[in-house]
Amino acid sequence: MPAIGVLGGMGPHAGLDLCRKIFDETDATRDQDHVSVAMLSYSDRIPDRAPFLLDQGGESPVDALVAIALSLEAAGASVIGMPCNTAHAPRIFDAMCEQVKGRGSSINFLHIVDETIAHIREVHPEIQTVGVLSTTATRNLRLYAERLETSGLNAVSPDDEVQEEIVNRSIYDPPHGIKAQANPISEIARQSLQTAISHLRDRGAEAVILGCTELPLVVTESRIEETVIIDPTRVLARALLRETHPERMKPLRVNGRETV
Amino acid sequence: MPAIGVLGGMGPHAGLDLCRKIFDETDATRDQDHVSVAMLSYSDRIPDRAPFLLDQGGESPVDALVAIALSLEAAGASVIGMPCNTAHAPRIFDAMCEQVKGRGSSINFLHIVDETIAHIREVHPEIQTVGVLSTTATRNLRLYAERLETSGLNAVSPDDEVQEEIVNRSIYDPPHGIKAQANPISEIARQSLQTAISHLRDRGAEAVILGCTELPLVVTESRIEETVIIDPTRVLARALLRETHPERMKPLRVNGRETV
Repeated sequence: MPAIGVLGGMGPHAGLDLCRKIFDETDATRDQDHVSVAMLSYSDRIPDRAPFLLDQGGESPVDALVAIALSLEAAGASVIGMPCNTAHAPRIFDAMCEQVKGRGSSINFLHIVDETIAHIREVHPEIQTVGVLSTTATRNLRLYAERLETSGLNAVSPDDEVQEEIVNRSIYDPPHGIKAQANPISEIARQSLQTAISHLRDRGAEAVILGCTELPLVVTESRIEETVIIDPTRVLARALLRETHPERMKPLRVNGRETV
Repeated sequence: MPAIGVLGGMGPHAGLDLCRKIFDETDATRDQDHVSVAMLSYSDRIPDRAPFLLDQGGESPVDALVAIALSLEAAGASVIGMPCNTAHAPRIFDAMCEQVKGRGSSINFLHIVDETIAHIREVHPEIQTVGVLSTTATRNLRLYAERLETSGLNAVSPDDEVQEEIVNRSIYDPPHGIKAQANPISEIARQSLQTAISHLRDRGAEAVILGCTELPLVVTESRIEETVIIDPTRVLARALLRETHPERMKPLRVNGRETV
């Protein structure tokens, strides 16, 4: 049986969150019903993605990601999910895929942004305008925005002040940022992100994508008031099951109801 | 930097719980401060430990565990923790260590039971009588009881009725058992385990070891009334950090206070 590979560590709790969602989306009543998952959480080997992408002198994470992807394949993984949206910027993701292929690997990488947009179009076809909460790097590179627009959707993001002072700080900055204190989550981070979601709603967002894998650690609702909340980590978990063990996947639940 | 290996999947949520406790016990404010952890959660390849140990015709899990341990070493792990108490019975654990060594590996396995008892003696030297909640296999094989007695402590376990009807069912039986429904945990499992802890207190236990790695998913207190609750998964997490990155470990907290 092929295993699912989780290229984790960005951050470590986001890697666990993807594993947990793979298990939670599996129809299982005993250990042996669960699928095989290999997770490598090599946080201390992977340079931060944001300073590299923003040309702030950061080291490239690509070599580290390639080495870890090949280790996942050696451990039996046939497909890899990478729970870090920022690392899906082409300068990282495309370079990694190319190098891994060049090393003779046939492993299949799923793309968290593409899977998330396909999910929105399939499950919420009525939605036209989508807000995205993310790192500043993901926002400025228009990682979600460009692909949303290509799919015929409108993309909205926070203004500069909300982006820097609320969203990015909630992700990174000690002592309250999620990467500094993931368990338990600080109440300040939780309230800040609620404010950012309201801000996107005011800008016209009918749905908000939690476009950084630290964010679903804090925002766990599937709807806040009339706004649909999209969790790319859960979308990726289901996509990994679809690729490997579709017969073991639970039916998709939307607003507490199963869909076909 | 050496990685910590987590031989998970028994069950899958117990594997995640060990990873989470490794991260939580690490002094870190950014991704790169975290240690490298490799987790292989190959639940569908590992036969159930209990029927094998109880001679109920179960297949041996040893070959599967050996293969997974060697994969962890290939992925860079120098030490392995196995979050499953039952799998530490000598017929499994000793056989696995011997076979892995016979394959030329020098990987170091920590022993969850030995680490837990050493922790109790060091941190709670006043405690004389220790209760153990576990699978029926762990209880009947006296996996904790023998080692507690060798250390000069008294061991108490549930009577047959509480063991079968309350503890074992809370671990295994659908729909409320933890292996059948780990997230969210059923309130029935939670209440049943409180009853079992009271039962052990009535039998003289000053501390209760949660001697099956599903149990700390439900019982998260470090003290219930006057009874000290011991979580072997957290003890193992700290032991894995001690073996690899002692300088990154947070101070031990007992009853909300740091110890030296």
